[in-house]
Amino acid sequence: MSAFGFAVEATSGKARAGRLETAHGSVSTPVFMPVGTQATVKAMTPEMVASTGAPIVLANTYHLMLRPGAERIAGLGGLHRFMRWPGPILTDSGGYQVMSLAKLRALDADGVTFASHLDGSRHRLTPERATEVQHLLDATITMQLDECAPWPIEEQAARASMELSLRWAERSRRAFEVRPGYGQFGIVQGSIFEDQRRASAEALRKTGFEGYAIGGLAVGEPRDVMLRVVEATCAHLPADQPRYLMGVGKPEDLVGAVLRGIDMFDCVLPTRSGRNGQAFTARGPVNLRNARHRDDPRPLDEESACPAARDYSRAYLHHLAKCDEILAAILLTWNNLFFYQELMRRLRAAIIGADAEGTAAAFLDRYASGDLPER
Amino acid sequence: MSAFGFAVEATSGKARAGRLETAHGSVSTPVFMPVGTQATVKAMTPEMVASTGAPIVLANTYHLMLRPGAERIAGLGGLHRFMRWPGPILTDSGGYQVMSLAKLRALDADGVTFASHLDGSRHRLTPERATEVQHLLDATITMQLDECAPWPIEEQAARASMELSLRWAERSRRAFEVRPGYGQFGIVQGSIFEDQRRASAEALRKTGFEGYAIGGLAVGEPRDVMLRVVEATCAHLPADQPRYLMGVGKPEDLVGAVLRGIDMFDCVLPTRSGRNGQAFTARGPVNLRNARHRDDPRPLDEESACPAARDYSRAYLHHLAKCDEILAAILLTWNNLFFYQELMRRLRAAIIGADAEGTAAAFLDRYASGDLPER
Repeated sequence: MSAFGFAVEATSGKARAGRLETAHGSVSTPVFMPVGTQATVKAMTPEMVASTGAPIVLANTYHLMLRPGAERIAGLGGLHRFMRWPGPILTDSGGYQVMSLAKLRALDADGVTFASHLDGSRHRLTPERATEVQHLLDATITMQLDECAPWPIEEQAARASMELSLRWAERSRRAFEVRPGYGQFGIVQGSIFEDQRRASAEALRKTGFEGYAIGGLAVGEPRDVMLRVVEATCAHLPADQPRYLMGVGKPEDLVGAVLRGIDMFDCVLPTRSGRNGQAFTARGPVNLRNARHRDDPRPLDEESACPAARDYSRAYLHHLAKCDEILAAILLTWNNLFFYQELMRRLRAAIIGADAEGTAAAFLDRYASGDLPER
Repeated sequence: MSAFGFAVEATSGKARAGRLETAHGSVSTPVFMPVGTQATVKAMTPEMVASTGAPIVLANTYHLMLRPGAERIAGLGGLHRFMRWPGPILTDSGGYQVMSLAKLRALDADGVTFASHLDGSRHRLTPERATEVQHLLDATITMQLDECAPWPIEEQAARASMELSLRWAERSRRAFEVRPGYGQFGIVQGSIFEDQRRASAEALRKTGFEGYAIGGLAVGEPRDVMLRVVEATCAHLPADQPRYLMGVGKPEDLVGAVLRGIDMFDCVLPTRSGRNGQAFTARGPVNLRNARHRDDPRPLDEESACPAARDYSRAYLHHLAKCDEILAAILLTWNNLFFYQELMRRLRAAIIGADAEGTAAAFLDRYASGDLPER
């Protein structure tokens, strides 16, 4: 078992190409982590996920503690064996889902009590329990419990929330059992207020984590505000540790954040879009439900090496999507995850080649060019 | 392109091992055809279907003529290219779905007018149009248009329906364009009345088809009645042409029908069950939603070579099924189609080894033995 480590291998401007070493394998960065909410990346077999080149996936503590239960997964040998994903797994702390999914939630200084969205059963999540649950799951990367403030929010309310998250960060860290090859990330909060972000980042660094996440963004604020806060926050994060922007995002957001120094991402967008008939391609997003595709024999994206993008006609994908066939979800999710991984590979190569800005501009230019002309 | 042909290679009692030669490849029999209703075997990629060993699939004329339309599929190069299944495809005539799915249907001597279950649009299906639609789809095996009588039915009503199907058989045959490697099957009707079945079979033989199907069974009649009618009907079908029992069925029904001389089957059971948490195993059907599986680390079926049966724990499959995750549908459908193909391979080997009865008895004995003891 190797030590948990991170090394920046190359930079291009503020963009970084790095490598994460974990107990479950290494991860080249920048990296996009497919979301496997309930211990499955929706509509994918583990082999399909691996075929996209994804080196690490995310799973949700909130969902798994409710069903099938963290102790049950521990008894079955942990999440890696359970979901047949031997590579690294990052688990969130559950805090975000408690706020967005659970019912009757009551936040106090010690933690949060909530009712399951599944059966109404009562549960309690504290920094200690959130950390324990992730240990039971055998998460490669554990996230601290935090409170994700809504947007917009008053400055004082944002500060109070950020300070609560800091106290929970300390308690999460004390509860974390340091093991070789495993890590825990603190989460910077502070909404769109740069001084709060700075205070949060500096306090977290004093507590000390194996990596740092930026939470509380991509919750409705304008894109330029998000990127400004990302850039401002990265300035206060250690240069030699990984930086993870939570819940982001669209391909253009990933590009913008990589240029500002982010190493890791997760988002449900490629998987959720894939179940809704939406495909990501080199020329931008394509809605396969649109009637323009119904007689089109061309593949979805000739520039992709993904079988879903290359081997099937748009006419067929359109038909599957209109029929709500499971194969539509399978193929479009596969295409989308492949697209996200390919984007990360391309950005990484550009950083190593010291041309992050140029490659990003070329990608964005092409991505904005629009779909193929109608036949 | 090879000629459409069929040869019986071995017999064991009334059971036959044969080989079908078609324009799209050869098919060893007995064979189970997975159902690809809307030009996709639900929850499967074409590669997954092929990995089960299935040499031929079925598609539904009714569904495809309504969406995306037969002319559209023809314009896209036919169904094989459309759904990426280069092997043989059998299409039904649409008659069964008109009776079970469509609204406002009006049957007359010439054909049937109906309203689409999708949008209420009016359509007409005649023997000539059903044959033309299947030609447009590029079906390897075309089925005549028939009327599938309900059960129970009065003897006189059954006879009238059977005779209507015979007139439609003649018209379907006249409309069929004979091409090398393509075939058309007539459908024997006559409900549970053996004299009607005989009359139907003999009349169809006079018209002359490349194969013969037995329709109007597995519509609610007792199992022993079905097998009696199958046996009685097979006695009046040519020994040197393929026999297809439509819409059957459970593994034990397939075994019983193979022993009575049937070569081909189709049924939605393995695919539909797979989407409902039901798995077929050597020890019988298993409901993965049952709580007995939730802590069980054992694979679904150690005797199977299917990755879905071998590589995942029952606890995980239970979790996926309880969560209604798409991966549950994928893995259980895969397992079930693999199980059906393996059963056909085993019966074929037994027929060639002149021990169909013994192998069938051993299979049925084990299949009735019940699931693994609870852990």
